[in-house]
Amino acid sequence: MSEELRRPVVTLLTDFGSGGGYIGAMKGVILRRVAADIVDITHAIPPQSIEAGALVLRSVAGFFPENTIHVVVIDPGVGSSRKAIAIHAGNHYFIGPDNGVLIPAARKAGKLDVREIDVRKIGLPEVSNTFHGRDVFAPAAAFLAAGSSFQKIGRSLSRYVPLEIEECRKVSGGLAGRIVYVDSFGNLLTGIPADTFKQVFSYGDRISLHLGDRRTMVQFKPTYASVDVGSPLILIGSHSFVEIAVRNGSALNFFEANPGQEVLFKKPVF
Amino acid sequence: MSEELRRPVVTLLTDFGSGGGYIGAMKGVILRRVAADIVDITHAIPPQSIEAGALVLRSVAGFFPENTIHVVVIDPGVGSSRKAIAIHAGNHYFIGPDNGVLIPAARKAGKLDVREIDVRKIGLPEVSNTFHGRDVFAPAAAFLAAGSSFQKIGRSLSRYVPLEIEECRKVSGGLAGRIVYVDSFGNLLTGIPADTFKQVFSYGDRISLHLGDRRTMVQFKPTYASVDVGSPLILIGSHSFVEIAVRNGSALNFFEANPGQEVLFKKPVF
Amino acid sequence: MSEELRRPVVTLLTDFGSGGGYIGAMKGVILRRVAADIVDITHAIPPQSIEAGALVLRSVAGFFPENTIHVVVIDPGVGSSRKAIAIHAGNHYFIGPDNGVLIPAARKAGKLDVREIDVRKIGLPEVSNTFHGRDVFAPAAAFLAAGSSFQKIGRSLSRYVPLEIEECRKVSGGLAGRIVYVDSFGNLLTGIPADTFKQVFSYGDRISLHLGDRRTMVQFKPTYASVDVGSPLILIGSHSFVEIAVRNGSALNFFEANPGQEVLFKKPVF
Repeated sequence: MSEELRRPVVTLLTDFGSGGGYIGAMKGVILRRVAADIVDITHAIPPQSIEAGALVLRSVAGFFPENTIHVVVIDPGVGSSRKAIAIHAGNHYFIGPDNGVLIPAARKAGKLDVREIDVRKIGLPEVSNTFHGRDVFAPAAAFLAAGSSFQKIGRSLSRYVPLEIEECRKVSGGLAGRIVYVDSFGNLLTGIPADTFKQVFSYGDRISLHLGDRRTMVQFKPTYASVDVGSPLILIGSHSFVEIAVRNGSALNFFEANPGQEVLFKKPVF
Repeated sequence: MSEELRRPVVTLLTDFGSGGGYIGAMKGVILRRVAADIVDITHAIPPQSIEAGALVLRSVAGFFPENTIHVVVIDPGVGSSRKAIAIHAGNHYFIGPDNGVLIPAARKAGKLDVREIDVRKIGLPEVSNTFHGRDVFAPAAAFLAAGSSFQKIGRSLSRYVPLEIEECRKVSGGLAGRIVYVDSFGNLLTGIPADTFKQVFSYGDRISLHLGDRRTMVQFKPTYASVDVGSPLILIGSHSFVEIAVRNGSALNFFEANPGQEVLFKKPVF
Repeated sequence: MSEELRRPVVTLLTDFGSGGGYIGAMKGVILRRVAADIVDITHAIPPQSIEAGALVLRSVAGFFPENTIHVVVIDPGVGSSRKAIAIHAGNHYFIGPDNGVLIPAARKAGKLDVREIDVRKIGLPEVSNTFHGRDVFAPAAAFLAAGSSFQKIGRSLSRYVPLEIEECRKVSGGLAGRIVYVDSFGNLLTGIPADTFKQVFSYGDRISLHLGDRRTMVQFKPTYASVDVGSPLILIGSHSFVEIAVRNGSALNFFEANPGQEVLFKKPVF
């Protein structure tokens, strides 16, 4: 396999669902300007869920090649005064709205160089008020994919909207967190990092899980296959956060849980 | 970025949904014959909705590079006597069933050269009666992507099934149109072109919106962010048609609307 | 179109749905290691449905170019002792869990050379217990795509988990089978091969279809367009299995059917 066939990689992460031609339009804009490999990360982020998008991007970005350009369109503020930004961090680029969605992934990648995208230089001639994904972010990605210098994308910003998805409080007898994202299997992803959890709990522990009005005894296990089919478990998901799951089933249905809900993990009292 | 890594671009637009391997089979057929960049526009067009597919294709095709080959499989008449056609218009190619779905996009691209695809030359050896996407359209796309002359794809057609999605009637005190497509956010896309609408209404106007039995006063605004979260608005969507939306919400649910439904936009009477 | 722009093709077939960044992570892992064309076959296989995944892969794989690498992640046993395998058959490669999902497609392709993937050689440095798609199968696909010899992927296996999706019993007056898969149109795909069915029934036959408690007279026809809109029919689907469909409608809803359900096709008694 010759290295000569390598092309710049652009990833897309949005809350567009499967409908409309919105994703297609973005790909057209990019391909019109540069030969690139365009990869869909997912378009099934719940509408306007900045935090869920941030968690997925942070989990996935690092697996891509150096110089990958990650474009995120989860953009409830489109048409308002929110800025369009580009970030260079580690050896990855991140493009999207200045609403925090890029920050956790960029911080994980390295030191942040944040710029405000200068639309006059790189946008489409006519920028719509409703779809910056197509008119600003996709052209900006093509600009970088074509090899333009990152500094030319716009002026440096010292302030930007931050976001923290790692979220974990020590409570009496355990840890408290929140359900940040529910994946397509119905697994409940919290923002509790694996390391913090493992300082308090060990594999094999039976944990009292408080979710809404319910308390359930659930085991902390290394793999789905460690429990019976249909049984719940707590594990470290492939994204390195604490996950609540049901083997070959849906924890969303099992626990009647909601995204955003508080969750407590407590050592049982005897 | 070297231009040498550019490959022909083939887009796919279908009503296949996400299931089955139907889209995968089409991609295999193309890649077996030619190295190309295959781009999904969307596969979530409602089943057999020729008009919705036509609107999305028309909105998106122009963003792609010159010589892009657009393949559409929304094909309620597969297995009947409907023709398989290829169109060269402007600097784009369009391939699909002769049911009108290609026409609005092709007309927007330029003057139409319409051909009937000659299956003996370019199809799979055995053409199924149920899946022309795989057996006729995908091979035809590969035929063009491989650089074959358009004239060789088949004989010229002077007649083809037309389709008009731009649809707008002047009514007393306003405009009447129809909901042609509902996107994945629940935005209601009409077939009313932006220019026509702006001749009657101006940004900031409060408009009496008649949808089914309901009349609602809704503002015409340039961006989603111009109204409060949860409030309805009328705007020009990124596809350049009039759109009914709810900021960070679903107009489909808000108005209990249906695709195909009549809609009236009237100046309020004082 | 120059052959120089050809790159190895890797297909992905999973039950991941559209959510999460799981598919994106796999693509990143592959692209980090090798320039390849990555094609989604479908990710909408019902969770843990090994049989449905096997049927789709068997229907689709043969349309891809020689040396295509097919990766399947339908993996209810991840984290258990089930093996990770790679198969060379005909001129295709198949990678996935040793649960039978690869077998029908590989058998159709040719004689099987089955190997156990040696993670020490080709996996990510740290293999998670929950996501072998990303940590084992994707690196194995990249290993082959990069041109490594198949023999180096691991030791030869003489035993593997088999699977038979072609399923058809002769019964008095007809044939019995099972609904193996429901596609996104609501078509009911059985495991009955076209050839077997055509030995018993001919196009134009009226067939007594027994599904659950219901008996319905349904015609065996070559195309959807052979019956009225909204009417049921039996046909040979594009995958070469017997399919129960409703023209421009959903057989799933029409027959209130379930995946896995028994189905009888009988000649009517006069």
